[in-house]
Amino acid sequence: MQYHVNGTLVPEDEATVSVRDRGFMYGDAAFETLRAYGGEPFRWDAHRDRLQRTAETLGFADAVPGDLRERVDETLAANDLEEAYVRLSVTRGVQPGKLTPGSDVDPTVVVICKGLQRGGLEGERVWDEPASVQTVRTRRIPSEAVPADAKTHNYLNGILGRLELRKAAAGGEPADECLIRDVDGNLAEGATSNLFFVTDNGLRTPSTDLDLLPGVTRDVVMDIARGEDFPVETGHYSLDALRDADEAFLTNSTWEIRPIETVDGISVGSGPMTKLLQRLFDERIEEQQY
Amino acid sequence: MQYHVNGTLVPEDEATVSVRDRGFMYGDAAFETLRAYGGEPFRWDAHRDRLQRTAETLGFADAVPGDLRERVDETLAANDLEEAYVRLSVTRGVQPGKLTPGSDVDPTVVVICKGLQRGGLEGERVWDEPASVQTVRTRRIPSEAVPADAKTHNYLNGILGRLELRKAAAGGEPADECLIRDVDGNLAEGATSNLFFVTDNGLRTPSTDLDLLPGVTRDVVMDIARGEDFPVETGHYSLDALRDADEAFLTNSTWEIRPIETVDGISVGSGPMTKLLQRLFDERIEEQQY
Repeated sequence: MQYHVNGTLVPEDEATVSVRDRGFMYGDAAFETLRAYGGEPFRWDAHRDRLQRTAETLGFADAVPGDLRERVDETLAANDLEEAYVRLSVTRGVQPGKLTPGSDVDPTVVVICKGLQRGGLEGERVWDEPASVQTVRTRRIPSEAVPADAKTHNYLNGILGRLELRKAAAGGEPADECLIRDVDGNLAEGATSNLFFVTDNGLRTPSTDLDLLPGVTRDVVMDIARGEDFPVETGHYSLDALRDADEAFLTNSTWEIRPIETVDGISVGSGPMTKLLQRLFDERIEEQQY
Repeated sequence: MQYHVNGTLVPEDEATVSVRDRGFMYGDAAFETLRAYGGEPFRWDAHRDRLQRTAETLGFADAVPGDLRERVDETLAANDLEEAYVRLSVTRGVQPGKLTPGSDVDPTVVVICKGLQRGGLEGERVWDEPASVQTVRTRRIPSEAVPADAKTHNYLNGILGRLELRKAAAGGEPADECLIRDVDGNLAEGATSNLFFVTDNGLRTPSTDLDLLPGVTRDVVMDIARGEDFPVETGHYSLDALRDADEAFLTNSTWEIRPIETVDGISVGSGPMTKLLQRLFDERIEEQQY
């Protein structure tokens, strides 16, 4: 593999950052993960805009390079990849040894990728099975501490949630995703995914006034549903509301739409709405590709 | 400068980590900062123990190498440093591309350092002036989201606090430290320091049931105060309690004991208790050195 580091393609084992890079020392960096289908980054503008917003939140708005898309294209081409996972990072770079950020930013910009199954109508899912989901004790970081809509290298909150799954499994198979509630007990999101569920009244997903990262795939799914005149409601939901749902699923850029089979061991399962949304999502991919 | 990376001393510009290191991608790493006086790391055992506890919280308890102290000594010797700042990091290393940590950990271990003024009775302070301190909107991450007593590469909470100082200064001189309250409004700590203040009733500092990192220097100061039969109270305090204090100061390994001159522009200032504690702290440094 070759990765793009600071404007240059380098072999994977030479793709490094300084131990003094603030992205390493403090997680002082913005990132995005996205998929390419047929060589084309899916929802590029949405990912680029969110990266920019995160950089603004972190106070290095000017650090995102104008040729980021070209760097992604070059990375995919260098690795001869059409169907791929892509991760972009922009860090505050190396600065003199103080925690307080200097206003002079020489950012570190990294693009890495790996091959994935072909997506779309004739593709395969990247996951083998519907997801088992488990609620964890770890709560979502409130936005008054770190804004939830910033996607940063500070990802321990989700990692601690995922670690609980291993502990809970006690040697058995851990659940696929942890369900993280906010400090008030409202359902927020998974460690790397947004949550949807289906009731008699339509599609429901936690609202963005809660502490969650509004995913690009979440937006696509809501857009598809509204286009089909399915009622979509965003709000504050308890774990009970999810357990009583007819269907439930998770979304993120790599999983796309992944049905939830069980929540805390209790069956929820897929159904016609989830299947239809998956189909319509696959069609969107095809529309972009050709 | 030479730094220690994975057991080897390397020139500063070759001291790097993979862009796939989880310490970089997610801030999935434990760290410590400490001082060496006369070539001897101050309170080594306390720092090593806290690093170990952080590694346990992050689920990689076995990753802290047994020869960490030797690596510190080698790094100081290679750079011919007796009076120094030292930063140690232990990350979860590179793992297959999933957020969920694998149980097989090949950690990345980094030691960096830089020269500092000589400490102790005949030394100079690393800071020029007493600290100006300002309360910020950013609140401390609650421990139910990320345990506050873990010192990790997820440091954006403090960085966002420090960024507010720059914004508040509007082109003028920013305050030296932000004062971060917990989500309930209790005084917690600075971005890189613990808070103490002095009233008629003795020395006060926020208690560790709040969301704060109990500093090694904080412990030394409390130990000194108790040894002198000064009353020490830990508890939950409001900003008003600090504003009404007779004296106030910040502690961390590099600053040691730094008086607070102003809080939100209002004078607090130093006094006899702060000066005495500084003197006794300096004596502790000398005791260790010789």
